[in-house]
Amino acid sequence: MSEQQSNGAPAVEGLSERTRAKWAAASTPEKIAANLPPMLDLTIENITENVMKINSMCDNPRLRYLILKLIQAAHDYVREVGLQFDEWEQAWEFLTKVGQISTDVRHEFVLLSDILGISALVDAISYPAVPGATESSVLGPFHDEEAHSFQYGESIFTEGTPGEPTIVRGWIKDTDGNTVPKALIDVWETDGNGVYDLEHDGNADPNCRGKIFSNEKGEGPLPLPHMHFMIEHPKYTKLITALYSRDSNFVESDTVFGVKKSLIVGYKWCEDLELAKEHTVTPIVKTIDGKESTGFWLLEQDFVLVKKSPPPPRKTED
Amino acid sequence: MSEQQSNGAPAVEGLSERTRAKWAAASTPEKIAANLPPMLDLTIENITENVMKINSMCDNPRLRYLILKLIQAAHDYVREVGLQFDEWEQAWEFLTKVGQISTDVRHEFVLLSDILGISALVDAISYPAVPGATESSVLGPFHDEEAHSFQYGESIFTEGTPGEPTIVRGWIKDTDGNTVPKALIDVWETDGNGVYDLEHDGNADPNCRGKIFSNEKGEGPLPLPHMHFMIEHPKYTKLITALYSRDSNFVESDTVFGVKKSLIVGYKWCEDLELAKEHTVTPIVKTIDGKESTGFWLLEQDFVLVKKSPPPPRKTED
Repeated sequence: MSEQQSNGAPAVEGLSERTRAKWAAASTPEKIAANLPPMLDLTIENITENVMKINSMCDNPRLRYLILKLIQAAHDYVREVGLQFDEWEQAWEFLTKVGQISTDVRHEFVLLSDILGISALVDAISYPAVPGATESSVLGPFHDEEAHSFQYGESIFTEGTPGEPTIVRGWIKDTDGNTVPKALIDVWETDGNGVYDLEHDGNADPNCRGKIFSNEKGEGPLPLPHMHFMIEHPKYTKLITALYSRDSNFVESDTVFGVKKSLIVGYKWCEDLELAKEHTVTPIVKTIDGKESTGFWLLEQDFVLVKKSPPPPRKTED
Repeated sequence: MSEQQSNGAPAVEGLSERTRAKWAAASTPEKIAANLPPMLDLTIENITENVMKINSMCDNPRLRYLILKLIQAAHDYVREVGLQFDEWEQAWEFLTKVGQISTDVRHEFVLLSDILGISALVDAISYPAVPGATESSVLGPFHDEEAHSFQYGESIFTEGTPGEPTIVRGWIKDTDGNTVPKALIDVWETDGNGVYDLEHDGNADPNCRGKIFSNEKGEGPLPLPHMHFMIEHPKYTKLITALYSRDSNFVESDTVFGVKKSLIVGYKWCEDLELAKEHTVTPIVKTIDGKESTGFWLLEQDFVLVKKSPPPPRKTED
């Protein structure tokens, strides 16, 4: 047997960093054991109480509450459906793969949460609708912190991106109707083929996404085609939302449950070539109502932010 | 806009393999949309029903049942604890890390399931105790398919492994008392320092683990020191179990909830040097009951397997 470390754990060479950290954090086996509740011969019926006991030694009351409730919910589920060993194996193998195909910019657990409706529910609970304020929607798996910054009025797509040119403009306001200058507007969307930049091969530069500050008057115009927005300002609650086109096939069946009536918008065809020029948008020729027309799509949409207020207390017990 | 593929999806170049596969599997947007239930303006109250509706289009009745119940359980949990956005963020970031530190031999989602008592519960449900048969226990995160095979009686640890020599021997039997020859016994355990081979740096060879067939008489002896066993035979239900030493500090507080009374064993000090020789075990000198003694540890333990029978039907509805 090797010499012992100060906490009683034996000094072993060649351990991986993980295991070394685990051992360094441990007290002596005797001390740990003395503090644990006794458990023996767990049954399907008594196991939950036992597991909750041993997991209740957490100082943070909110975290303890979340963990204990999670154990109760997970055990109730397993018991109710009679989960079998091979099903459990498939579940953890699946979850491992979800983690392993995730990257810094591809958040597959967010997507899993999205399609199970958990994201939309958490969103609804965390950001209850405030009368007069823009409603929130789900973050989705395609947000990328690494998006480029743009100047007010610049285009967020690169030359040659499929799709038709669109200008989005509107005011960033608060619920009293005041404009909010210097709000950070983070926008992301697919190209005209319905593909996010992150879905392309290789490490291409960010495209169809960008961060823009609203101007001194609180105006935030951006040329683009489904659209996600994250709007931040130190004095206001962060708004994560999205605008859904009235013309989409999926506006009534969004698989990630983000659509709200107030977030469905319509694009207007606009022939104001001066406005196009101002925002460096190249107009296209398109048949509109049976006539050839030179123009672009315009979406006018204000966003109304909510002033920050102290958060309500979080549950720590039933 | 690019040309369309046969299913109506546009043909786009440079897509990642993932996205290509996703598109190839899709029907046309119109067809998909026509088959989806309408949803709009989800609320905290109605979202669960809506999410279940859109996730109920699964042909496998058991899978559909598991998914729908999972949605219900997850939503009930989120609503009951009032899960907040930042807590949800921490949760998916944590789960991503769990997946990313997992490897072929390091199953961190199994460990997470273990410490939440889910593994032990699934084990109890999947393998109910059969009178007279050896009870099962949890798999744990340290099983490794890549373990070496050994001949009957060979030692599974390499020269210089810390610990004291131990011989484990016993019969593999069925519940009628018949011996079971040619059962595959897969054993894994820590070394004398309490460290699994997988916890060491680098890709060292498997150590303190191995696969052995029971002999013609069904006897399965192995020299070793806490021990996991997986015993397989085509005619018998696979037994995953573990033996827990009576002398362990943690026998009443196993953090993965695997201990059962019938699996607690005691090692005996043995001075039978002929037996040691037979199993290529080098005896050590140790003070036993105040006297110097040359010997090794012996554990005699039979394993009783259950004959395979048709599995009971699994729930597909309440």
